[in-house]
Amino acid sequence: MTELPSYADLPPAPGGGRSAWGLFGEQDNLGLVNLMTPERIAAAARLVRRGQVFCLDMPLGSVAPALATFRGAPRHHVLHQPGTAGFDDVYDNFYPQASSQWDSLAHVGYAPDQMYNGVTEQQVLAGERNTIDHWARHGIAGRAVLLDAERAIRAAGRPYDPGESVAIDVDDLELARRQAGVEFAPGDTILLHTGFAAWYVRQPVQVKNRLHGNVTAPGVAHTEAVCEYLWNSHAAAIACDTFGVEVFPADRGAQAHPFGFLHNMLIGQFGMALGELWWLADLAADCAADGIHEMFLVSAPLNAPGGIGSPANAVAIK
Amino acid sequence: MTELPSYADLPPAPGGGRSAWGLFGEQDNLGLVNLMTPERIAAAARLVRRGQVFCLDMPLGSVAPALATFRGAPRHHVLHQPGTAGFDDVYDNFYPQASSQWDSLAHVGYAPDQMYNGVTEQQVLAGERNTIDHWARHGIAGRAVLLDAERAIRAAGRPYDPGESVAIDVDDLELARRQAGVEFAPGDTILLHTGFAAWYVRQPVQVKNRLHGNVTAPGVAHTEAVCEYLWNSHAAAIACDTFGVEVFPADRGAQAHPFGFLHNMLIGQFGMALGELWWLADLAADCAADGIHEMFLVSAPLNAPGGIGSPANAVAIK
Amino acid sequence: MTELPSYADLPPAPGGGRSAWGLFGEQDNLGLVNLMTPERIAAAARLVRRGQVFCLDMPLGSVAPALATFRGAPRHHVLHQPGTAGFDDVYDNFYPQASSQWDSLAHVGYAPDQMYNGVTEQQVLAGERNTIDHWARHGIAGRAVLLDAERAIRAAGRPYDPGESVAIDVDDLELARRQAGVEFAPGDTILLHTGFAAWYVRQPVQVKNRLHGNVTAPGVAHTEAVCEYLWNSHAAAIACDTFGVEVFPADRGAQAHPFGFLHNMLIGQFGMALGELWWLADLAADCAADGIHEMFLVSAPLNAPGGIGSPANAVAIK
Amino acid sequence: MTELPSYADLPPAPGGGRSAWGLFGEQDNLGLVNLMTPERIAAAARLVRRGQVFCLDMPLGSVAPALATFRGAPRHHVLHQPGTAGFDDVYDNFYPQASSQWDSLAHVGYAPDQMYNGVTEQQVLAGERNTIDHWARHGIAGRAVLLDAERAIRAAGRPYDPGESVAIDVDDLELARRQAGVEFAPGDTILLHTGFAAWYVRQPVQVKNRLHGNVTAPGVAHTEAVCEYLWNSHAAAIACDTFGVEVFPADRGAQAHPFGFLHNMLIGQFGMALGELWWLADLAADCAADGIHEMFLVSAPLNAPGGIGSPANAVAIK
Repeated sequence: MTELPSYADLPPAPGGGRSAWGLFGEQDNLGLVNLMTPERIAAAARLVRRGQVFCLDMPLGSVAPALATFRGAPRHHVLHQPGTAGFDDVYDNFYPQASSQWDSLAHVGYAPDQMYNGVTEQQVLAGERNTIDHWARHGIAGRAVLLDAERAIRAAGRPYDPGESVAIDVDDLELARRQAGVEFAPGDTILLHTGFAAWYVRQPVQVKNRLHGNVTAPGVAHTEAVCEYLWNSHAAAIACDTFGVEVFPADRGAQAHPFGFLHNMLIGQFGMALGELWWLADLAADCAADGIHEMFLVSAPLNAPGGIGSPANAVAIK
Repeated sequence: MTELPSYADLPPAPGGGRSAWGLFGEQDNLGLVNLMTPERIAAAARLVRRGQVFCLDMPLGSVAPALATFRGAPRHHVLHQPGTAGFDDVYDNFYPQASSQWDSLAHVGYAPDQMYNGVTEQQVLAGERNTIDHWARHGIAGRAVLLDAERAIRAAGRPYDPGESVAIDVDDLELARRQAGVEFAPGDTILLHTGFAAWYVRQPVQVKNRLHGNVTAPGVAHTEAVCEYLWNSHAAAIACDTFGVEVFPADRGAQAHPFGFLHNMLIGQFGMALGELWWLADLAADCAADGIHEMFLVSAPLNAPGGIGSPANAVAIK
Repeated sequence: MTELPSYADLPPAPGGGRSAWGLFGEQDNLGLVNLMTPERIAAAARLVRRGQVFCLDMPLGSVAPALATFRGAPRHHVLHQPGTAGFDDVYDNFYPQASSQWDSLAHVGYAPDQMYNGVTEQQVLAGERNTIDHWARHGIAGRAVLLDAERAIRAAGRPYDPGESVAIDVDDLELARRQAGVEFAPGDTILLHTGFAAWYVRQPVQVKNRLHGNVTAPGVAHTEAVCEYLWNSHAAAIACDTFGVEVFPADRGAQAHPFGFLHNMLIGQFGMALGELWWLADLAADCAADGIHEMFLVSAPLNAPGGIGSPANAVAIK
Repeated sequence: MTELPSYADLPPAPGGGRSAWGLFGEQDNLGLVNLMTPERIAAAARLVRRGQVFCLDMPLGSVAPALATFRGAPRHHVLHQPGTAGFDDVYDNFYPQASSQWDSLAHVGYAPDQMYNGVTEQQVLAGERNTIDHWARHGIAGRAVLLDAERAIRAAGRPYDPGESVAIDVDDLELARRQAGVEFAPGDTILLHTGFAAWYVRQPVQVKNRLHGNVTAPGVAHTEAVCEYLWNSHAAAIACDTFGVEVFPADRGAQAHPFGFLHNMLIGQFGMALGELWWLADLAADCAADGIHEMFLVSAPLNAPGGIGSPANAVAIK
């Protein structure tokens, strides 16, 4: 496929929005990660100038309790017999989505039994389609562009609280993009910095406990205009420093998307890779300092047969 | 530090061999990964030509039972309530060293209570020193060179069985290096291909079951000459497609290193990063085909506070 | 000790209520289970007439999600290699308090760092005091009396909804006791049937999901009069078919006990054994049918060193 | 069924031995536990004289590593937030057969896909037949008789090492029965004391580590005569202080049973309940002291839907 159709040229999805099913073939399990082609990866590697590596994974367990939701933190045992020189370790209750993470295309469908590309519930349960190992084998690498919503909105003189339910709409995304000085290119990963994760880790433990079950977060607005904007960016992925990329709770105004969540459209119809709870604070500060908002991104998701999610295992290199 | 001393210039370690403790400061927790500097990473990124990504992680659980040893495979649950569009998953018994993996500097010491850089057992148990999160935060990236021991030994006309206990000595490593057409450079990761992992996955399940507790594997010989060679390469890391990098069971001839395992020296004294059970078969075939044995390597170990090991989460990009 | 003091003769506890600390010696870890003496056990065994056994444990996992709270259901794997005659199984995320269960005396204290008998937080964490294994080694056996609050309140012509927050006060307990035709004797286990567990299992799955985080339940009223009544019964244990024995949410009227929960007094001061989520429906129906509300009770808690709770592992034999 | 047929009257099993399939109906999932009838339970309760309770469960985790085999010990976390009065706990890697335990009738079949009563592999995997919850709901209670093989063999002046592979044949069982002064009655549980568990726990940790993978144990001889004897005892269950009831490794002399293990016959054909790694040392010492070798036994296996095994959760009351 030489070029992606625009949102307007996509066929309508049965329950609202547009559908990208079949665009990469009926058997495709990669979705927009297909746009991460060798040519684009080679070009993106040339964005590395200083050789500085940014770890985009938060410490395992650091988002519990409030952001780990029902999942809880992983439980970690170090195994060691005193008097020996060896140590080993093991995790239990290891939810790959309980910290910085990727949603695979098996995580959320457009509707029940309607996963990306027409995949069924049974095919996901059987580990046959859309699972995280497809991305692991293909590799996730390429150009990333950082959109700093927090700095852009503040710079525009608007009040902003990274712990509140702020809907980031198309105008805000454009504002951040222009401040970053970047154009989108096919196969990009959009890194959307809202300041939420850095805000959360600063809270005292009592506040974190109170937030459990009551947390709110900024994120992209719950509108079809946002869907259209993201599709037309031709980005392969969007990763954010919140637990859901989209604003939570969802705004329910007149422009609201008919679906329960943007996840249903972005993952279930577009086949877009969604990254959540990424640690973008250090990278965003660096971009603000040197003015360079594009970089090389590499992530190695767990090669987990039948896996639904994965730790992000992501680094940005500038 | 502008330049590493040679092996001969290292002070002797108390129980044999040489010691690199203190070379990067008393508080260092990174070991030779310190050699992965921004300059070297930036230079290594320029090795990317075609943009082809090689996933170096075997599928989770695929090495059980024989190579997972006492650890067992991770246990995976997919969580889904019929009639909804969402899926989640969770792992139990997730041993980060039960598949393609990194040993952190907290995995094996030089001797009991003598971990790399003089770290104690208590400091490891407290998660304060040498643990995997130090590498995760620093980032593992840089040049890798593939030494194809299997192809080199076969090309030399010698019999070779990748399921047997073949000791790969300095001459063999040199043979493979010359065939690769590479020189070592500081901060490199040596990818040592023996063919073992590919051999193992080809075995029928009954053979894998029989191998449990009885497995043998090729690997670097158990000699001080190998230690000297690896140190003088100034590589930061060595990753292999076997479960121990060193030959197993260890050869016990006249040249044998006085320690139980090379691990004690390589990890406990040198602070070298050891990768095990990596999937190098596809990369090695590609190197054999195009003759290019150097590439860009990126790995994002789990950012796991107090962690002893991690899935490799590694890709090579040519 | 020949006879327990009455509630009025207990010394006051520092923050309200009365204290039984020291009554069985400073090193005691059993609490009122000390009252289950060989003589009483032998006498209770003679209550067995028909030889009918009632299993008082609900199926593992059957109370999820709403009643398993943050704990979640155990995760169960059956291990089997096709073509062999053997099967094995393993549980992960096995919370001993996520189904029919015992609270040990290490579960809740009178106040932070003030566990039953003056035990400290550190002693519990070290597994030295008050943990469930003390009861396992001593054995839990003796006479049980079933108080059927649901039938007694309904028989009195009062409306009753077993899914609501109904406070069962001393008059209600007396009503049920008289209807049962029993007197309390030292070392008894009071089985308090409210109908809650049977009500819960009848709800459709959507209702159970909605109840998660919003569940209410009947239980003993949150008053000092209830504490006095239970102490003066000289019962060793009280087990109920709700998740907390005491009404939830707690009533906060003028008579309300000053503590957050009765647990703090019953476990933390009295050293009383609390059983929760027991399956009493079949036993209660049998008692209603034959009019006999006393029986032999045997429970074998997990012999779990350092354990905080245990599945009930309880049977009643009539 | 008024009376069980004798072994000689059972139909032959296709691969050797005799079959009890169908004896309690085609849909039966209880096997010989059916013999634990209310009348017998009521009679057994009258064996309680002193009221002394013996806990027959070893501490969880205490048999690791050697006797936990591939299963490993349960991993235990105590959950506590400093400054609060509450504690909770959770187990991972909880193998119900890694300590004192019951094998359900789903644990081992007569042959692959031929479980007790003709049940298939698929029915076990689906949790429909033979699983442990059937016994939990029925209840395990009744008369137990202790056969003290260790004391009987020593008293006969023969050398005996409880850590060795001693085959206990029919003559030895009879010797122990006569010394116990008991006759078997239908529905009994035979408690076979060999001294093995008490021997194991006395070993230093280094010896336990060496025994891992190399352990030997006494147990009933591997002969059809033993099968016949056990069947004709009309016992419902046999529980032992070793990990397999039968001698390990199996003796392979001329009298050896044609099957791999007696398990295949006892569980897979007879439907007999097998208890393993029970703690019988204290009970056996008490029996030797007072000469009374019959008692009341109560066990409450986990009410675990689809469960293959369970902690023993057993007490003997004399």
